[in-house]
Amino acid sequence: MHKACEKLRLQIRQVHEGRYLLGLSGGADSTMLLTLLAPDAREGRIRLEAVHVNHGLRGAESDEDERFCRELCEREAVPFTAYRAELDGRKDEASARTARFAFFRERYLETGADALILAHNADDQAETFLMRLLRGAGPEGLECMRNDEITDGIRILRPMLGIRRDEIREALRTDSLSWREDSTNGQDVYLRNRIRKELVPAMERIAENAVEKICRTAGQIADDNDTLYERTEKLIREHCSGSTLEAAAIATEPAGMRKRVLRKWWTMNGPRLKEHALSATQTDELDRLLISHKGKINLPGNRHAVRTGRYLFLTGNEEKKPDPVSFCTPETAFGSFRLTVTPSEGRPGNGKTTQEVPEDFCDGCVIRTRKDGDRIRPFGSAGHKKLQDFLTDRKIEEPFRDRIPLLCRGDEVLLVCGVGAGDIPGWNPDDHPVRLTWHGDMPWAEKTGE
Amino acid sequence: MHKACEKLRLQIRQVHEGRYLLGLSGGADSTMLLTLLAPDAREGRIRLEAVHVNHGLRGAESDEDERFCRELCEREAVPFTAYRAELDGRKDEASARTARFAFFRERYLETGADALILAHNADDQAETFLMRLLRGAGPEGLECMRNDEITDGIRILRPMLGIRRDEIREALRTDSLSWREDSTNGQDVYLRNRIRKELVPAMERIAENAVEKICRTAGQIADDNDTLYERTEKLIREHCSGSTLEAAAIATEPAGMRKRVLRKWWTMNGPRLKEHALSATQTDELDRLLISHKGKINLPGNRHAVRTGRYLFLTGNEEKKPDPVSFCTPETAFGSFRLTVTPSEGRPGNGKTTQEVPEDFCDGCVIRTRKDGDRIRPFGSAGHKKLQDFLTDRKIEEPFRDRIPLLCRGDEVLLVCGVGAGDIPGWNPDDHPVRLTWHGDMPWAEKTGE
Repeated sequence: MHKACEKLRLQIRQVHEGRYLLGLSGGADSTMLLTLLAPDAREGRIRLEAVHVNHGLRGAESDEDERFCRELCEREAVPFTAYRAELDGRKDEASARTARFAFFRERYLETGADALILAHNADDQAETFLMRLLRGAGPEGLECMRNDEITDGIRILRPMLGIRRDEIREALRTDSLSWREDSTNGQDVYLRNRIRKELVPAMERIAENAVEKICRTAGQIADDNDTLYERTEKLIREHCSGSTLEAAAIATEPAGMRKRVLRKWWTMNGPRLKEHALSATQTDELDRLLISHKGKINLPGNRHAVRTGRYLFLTGNEEKKPDPVSFCTPETAFGSFRLTVTPSEGRPGNGKTTQEVPEDFCDGCVIRTRKDGDRIRPFGSAGHKKLQDFLTDRKIEEPFRDRIPLLCRGDEVLLVCGVGAGDIPGWNPDDHPVRLTWHGDMPWAEKTGE
Repeated sequence: MHKACEKLRLQIRQVHEGRYLLGLSGGADSTMLLTLLAPDAREGRIRLEAVHVNHGLRGAESDEDERFCRELCEREAVPFTAYRAELDGRKDEASARTARFAFFRERYLETGADALILAHNADDQAETFLMRLLRGAGPEGLECMRNDEITDGIRILRPMLGIRRDEIREALRTDSLSWREDSTNGQDVYLRNRIRKELVPAMERIAENAVEKICRTAGQIADDNDTLYERTEKLIREHCSGSTLEAAAIATEPAGMRKRVLRKWWTMNGPRLKEHALSATQTDELDRLLISHKGKINLPGNRHAVRTGRYLFLTGNEEKKPDPVSFCTPETAFGSFRLTVTPSEGRPGNGKTTQEVPEDFCDGCVIRTRKDGDRIRPFGSAGHKKLQDFLTDRKIEEPFRDRIPLLCRGDEVLLVCGVGAGDIPGWNPDDHPVRLTWHGDMPWAEKTGE
């Protein structure tokens, strides 16, 4: 029994021992995959549960699909869970897919599954490749689906990604197994349908094994992406501090790597809306700015990129500034920064990140960012100057100035985090000294050896 | 005059000052490019020469092409050189292209040109992409043509790579300029023709600007390849010594990078014939061997890959062993190795790469690789042992053994390069000592601090 299917069983990627969910629509592919995995489940080699999502998009037909899946699972003795999806009137295939994945995810977390198994086949993969190629997706998109990947914390396995669609249907037919044909033909499956019905057959007429070759290419691009992602992450880790990118360090990378870093940086710091994604032209513009020495460009969502000094800044982000906080001992937290008070070490500190002061010196002070009227009496100087001028003298890039934590008493600035200290007034040799230290990420601070 | 062409002029990549050759076939693309660049040449901004290759493949038609090009150049006041190609009966398009490039190259070197300018357009690029995709070329092939690249030491510029084929013809027609239609339709342009006539139009019907999107993708893949080539080269430089690859160091790389290193290693050390290229399956097999600890696989052209110890070896290469050479002072060259004689440093040396011996100790010795019957009296030992056993004791991998230079007197081995020394017989404290040092790449030698 199921002889033709059994043959396919040897061709699919092996699913190791564990607990799995299988996305079951009742279509040929998932029907086949359930048929192939059910014996393993019955023998206890794997634990399997089929999950079906009924979108109710096609009325009675949708209910028939659910009934088909339920009966199939009963026959195969595989536990079955069905969800009914509310799509809030959004009847397109993309919304259905999103809703479906949300249910899979819910059940995945509930059951503590090792992986979600999906029944995508080689034709799905080749179609995805061509669809993305025709949308101009670039190498990051062209890796398409992987046979083993993590998406939103869910491990997804696709054991049939190497099998052709026709082989699957042919085997089901030979073994007299039935499946449900999906009659959906919605608006946004238009491109995929034309690729499936016109483009792939044309390619197969022109070149032998076109689908297999496209699938292999997608796999090789995925492999290359792994290498490139790793390096992108490393560069971001080493040279990116929020919306500030150390441009001078990235500029020496090859163009492709620079652009990957810039896209990643934008994804992390730019606006979240899809329509604010960076276009290829905008990426090129941003790259030209990165390798230049000075300049500013407009970006989607009212953002700007500013190149100055060693940095590239993304501005226009509505980064909420931390509220002012009163200084306290032994530690004051201010956003992602901390100012700590520790015993004196008997030496003055570098003035930038460490400073020794009389013990009661900071009583009544606050930590905040700059405001109009701020002034400072630089260390060793008799009179006051505007904080603005103090920062200019020290070549602090404009986009940093609103982010730097200040220790203030009224409009008198006593310490500028990572930059310098005011003259400590009223220092008396008999005062008991303590050590103040700033902690946090200060890309504006030149590294000091102290 | 030439108004429509002038418009295109703004869209092509600018050609900077310099001395150029232009490949001129008389077809629409190269006719356009000559028309666009000729004013710059006449004004002296660039130095331009058109080069035409007459393959005589199509009899009178070929001669007409040449005449057309000559007259076009006369009209445009651009110097013109024509070559007549002998194809030795090979009338296919690939042989013609190879022959054509050889002539371009010859003229390039003769004239000291800065670059060869070719008239490929966006459609050529998209067709090349699809052709390679359908041949399963992988990301290295999918980068297609670049608008600025070095091939065989020749810099090639393609200023029209962003312009559509139809735009070019349309502009020529509007300006009433004529060109030569190539009637060639040979065997191996079959795939390209079907792509041009069936696939690209189908894609353009399905998705807007399909050709532009494919071209952009090719450019992005080229960018990524630059990053990956750089890393591949670095790994090869650091961990590859001829047909020996330091497998342990490569095995920690991501799969895509490992395979790129393996393909490069094969290209550098495997057989040169095209039919011996590594297939995707063979690359996968080789990769599995690389990340394993021990094993051997067969490769094309009667080669074998052997994984043992820290290394992956390619064997079966008919690497010509250097002939034995007589020892001489102050230096004996043996293949890529050298043995030098320098004044004693008053300490014995590490026995592996340096050894102090009496001045006349090496008289009459030869340097050669191992042969049957070789024996050695290990340093500090009373009797002789087989060289084979000596090497086994020191865990020298088999594939290295035929490559290690030996200093011998008859079948007595005195020094084994990078491995050890025999006992120096007849050492007399009054002898005047000298220092022998081996130089060269010895992957079999563990690094010693001496």
